[in-house]
Amino acid sequence: MCRNLVVNIVCKRSFSISALCLRKRTFSSMPPVTPKSFDYLVIGGGSGGIASARRAAEFGVSVGLIESSRLGGTCVNVGCVPKKVMFLTAMHSEYLHDQPDYGFDVEKKGFSWSMVKQKRDAYIKRLNDIYFGNLERSKVEYIKGRAKFTDNRCLEVDGQLYTGKHIMIAAGGRPIMPDIPGSELGITSDGFFELEELPKKTAVVGAGYIAVELAGILNDLGSDVSLFIRKQQALRNFDCMVSENVTETIQASGITLVTGSVSKSLVKSGDGTMTYETTAGVFSGFDCVIWAVGRTPNSDILDLDKVGVKTDKAGNILVDEYQNTDAPGIYALGDICGRALLTPVAIRAGRMLAHRLFDNKPDLKMNYNLIATVVFSHPPIGTIGLTEAEAEAKYKRENLKIYQSTFNNMYFALTERKERTKMKLICAGPEEKVVGLHMQGMGVDEMLQGFSVAITMGATKKDFDATVAIHPTSGEELVTMR
Amino acid sequence: MCRNLVVNIVCKRSFSISALCLRKRTFSSMPPVTPKSFDYLVIGGGSGGIASARRAAEFGVSVGLIESSRLGGTCVNVGCVPKKVMFLTAMHSEYLHDQPDYGFDVEKKGFSWSMVKQKRDAYIKRLNDIYFGNLERSKVEYIKGRAKFTDNRCLEVDGQLYTGKHIMIAAGGRPIMPDIPGSELGITSDGFFELEELPKKTAVVGAGYIAVELAGILNDLGSDVSLFIRKQQALRNFDCMVSENVTETIQASGITLVTGSVSKSLVKSGDGTMTYETTAGVFSGFDCVIWAVGRTPNSDILDLDKVGVKTDKAGNILVDEYQNTDAPGIYALGDICGRALLTPVAIRAGRMLAHRLFDNKPDLKMNYNLIATVVFSHPPIGTIGLTEAEAEAKYKRENLKIYQSTFNNMYFALTERKERTKMKLICAGPEEKVVGLHMQGMGVDEMLQGFSVAITMGATKKDFDATVAIHPTSGEELVTMR
Repeated sequence: MCRNLVVNIVCKRSFSISALCLRKRTFSSMPPVTPKSFDYLVIGGGSGGIASARRAAEFGVSVGLIESSRLGGTCVNVGCVPKKVMFLTAMHSEYLHDQPDYGFDVEKKGFSWSMVKQKRDAYIKRLNDIYFGNLERSKVEYIKGRAKFTDNRCLEVDGQLYTGKHIMIAAGGRPIMPDIPGSELGITSDGFFELEELPKKTAVVGAGYIAVELAGILNDLGSDVSLFIRKQQALRNFDCMVSENVTETIQASGITLVTGSVSKSLVKSGDGTMTYETTAGVFSGFDCVIWAVGRTPNSDILDLDKVGVKTDKAGNILVDEYQNTDAPGIYALGDICGRALLTPVAIRAGRMLAHRLFDNKPDLKMNYNLIATVVFSHPPIGTIGLTEAEAEAKYKRENLKIYQSTFNNMYFALTERKERTKMKLICAGPEEKVVGLHMQGMGVDEMLQGFSVAITMGATKKDFDATVAIHPTSGEELVTMR
Repeated sequence: MCRNLVVNIVCKRSFSISALCLRKRTFSSMPPVTPKSFDYLVIGGGSGGIASARRAAEFGVSVGLIESSRLGGTCVNVGCVPKKVMFLTAMHSEYLHDQPDYGFDVEKKGFSWSMVKQKRDAYIKRLNDIYFGNLERSKVEYIKGRAKFTDNRCLEVDGQLYTGKHIMIAAGGRPIMPDIPGSELGITSDGFFELEELPKKTAVVGAGYIAVELAGILNDLGSDVSLFIRKQQALRNFDCMVSENVTETIQASGITLVTGSVSKSLVKSGDGTMTYETTAGVFSGFDCVIWAVGRTPNSDILDLDKVGVKTDKAGNILVDEYQNTDAPGIYALGDICGRALLTPVAIRAGRMLAHRLFDNKPDLKMNYNLIATVVFSHPPIGTIGLTEAEAEAKYKRENLKIYQSTFNNMYFALTERKERTKMKLICAGPEEKVVGLHMQGMGVDEMLQGFSVAITMGATKKDFDATVAIHPTSGEELVTMR
């Protein structure tokens, strides 16, 4: 009955739960449903789920993957990928602005948001298809539908039962709406990617990286953007230099920054525009309001209580450092665990779990320290390691040496528009180990990855100094700091 | 008479040669000239000379610096800096081409080379002034004029004699002209930076990085460019992947590549254009011919034989690993030594020498291994360490593991123009130490510096793998190679 139960695989634990599923069903009034069983059953076809499923399949085990929506998850469909496309589009707006300074006689006659939207959608469709093809090639069985746990460790998808010796939950998260009257008039980042036209006047609400990125894109492309934040600075969890600098560059870019603003209500006016009331005042005339006030895990739609998978108050699934949930044989990773909501983190955690379960690497686990992050703001931000405040708390001020640099990228030598680059290196202890690197400026998005290798290796300031600079680049600044 | 001879400095050797200079002069028919003496006398106000002079001055010694031309040397005036400005200008030409694909309705009405030239010249003038100000602030005495060694270790500049306890030669190099009839009708890279207008039809002769960079810039900006190379590929000293890929991208970009071409003559035709005869045929109609066939050190104009500083056959000053020439107390570094002709190399060698001589660090020397280099071709190239051929010679094929990747940068998802990115990681030994990294593609110019820190630290493939990727970037490809 449980076809896939006895397979020659390398795994630490296996559970004969399929039989239990079946037994339970036979006692109910419904006809018995035979659960389909896999060695590895993955819930969620996003970055983490797909990476983990495909890696597991490499080890010859049977793998099923359940996804109700398009393959690729948040990243491909409503996250990193379409966001980066829009960032690149917005960069062209900046370049167009600068081209006369570079000797080009250029007339900008218009911009077609809808054209970019269509091409972007087509690109994402191609990626969805590639992901589908990859699953097929990897011999991962793709189960389209919404999964819910039943009692006794099965998952029901459209009336069919599935189970796995190992079940992994990577069902991701979704943006939240604020709990205020009229919030449904606004959209979230999901809605941003559905916009068919560039909004004329946009309110972006939030101080996190999604708010900063979307506000920057819309502003560059010509929308009249106001950014509403609760405190005085955006990206307050970032290093103080970044937080301060991004707040300044947002204002310098022409975005109206409204600080000390807590949402009260959103109402539709007679002319069809929206009026947004906050503790900082009443603002009107918006044809688009974007809530970028946080995300919530999709743990509430899985009936996790039926299998004993526990969450914290915010709904994040509780896992140990090996991605084990409280339920034996059930694992979780990615955004649904609420820690480091980043595609490469989910991918890595997913692959490591596959190696741990099916490749006889029982000690393999994700290292959540030193995760490099790029924010595709204008200009972009790159950051890894401790902020100055965190480093001070950990090492004490007297054990830190901090190197900073502010300069104009050579790109701006010929332009009226100026954009400074800021860099900070936080070093700890007598050996000046680099414990934090933070920067904002043109090109830092591609600059960071290599430095993150060095810092993950435990680089000291001396290692940076021992490296020959590459001239003329921005990156050379980081190896010539005094 | 020798004012600066007795100074309280930290140095390994000192020479009372000023007195000798003076003595010799007193025997000649000319009136006695008192040589001005410094603790450290530097010949050449380029990257290496200025860096070394200023660093030495930090240690409280008297420093003189002789420069006949504008401060900043090749890099600032006719090298890296104006080249990068032109690279950025050319990038805008590519962006303009792509902007319709990104939804922008743009009409390009014209391009003013002369405007860019004027702004570029003004920018360089500002840099010259900054360098001048920096020398003043550092209390380095700037001696403007052409220096020649006299007997007994003095330097004559416009009839005045100078000497130093320590003399350092960083007089750089210059582009060479081929020895063929009519070569004077062409220009070199120096002449490229004097061009007041974009040439209509340009011949670029050479297969090195300068030829590749200038051909790319001119082609992007609308000149009809032919690139003449002797063998079948450009950048033949680079890794084979780079050499092959750059040759293909040159051809794909619309540049006419003429291979197997050795110069025979250049003649002016009746219509004012030039006809270029090579072993590969006769090519006519050029209003600009650029020789990018190599550079020669400026050692021939210094009367080095008078002080016993020796050179190789090509004129490169012979130095040991501490930059010592054959003449005691006389050092040389930078392009005039013919090794790794790069600004940061000269700067680092110059600073290290200053520390060695005046900061009591007798063992400090430049490490000429692992010098990262970027070529500002279209797209740019980044490279560090051994080429595949070099690695094979050093480690043998069976001890190498080579990782490669070819992909389209997400930027080109929306464009008709496609540009692939190529990356190669060469790893040696059972620990898979990264001994070479080579790449060509959008963004690799800023990507390389951080990886060069990691590789200088001795990174292995495992260190790369242990680093969390940054998504979506090109750089992440380097930490996810299988």
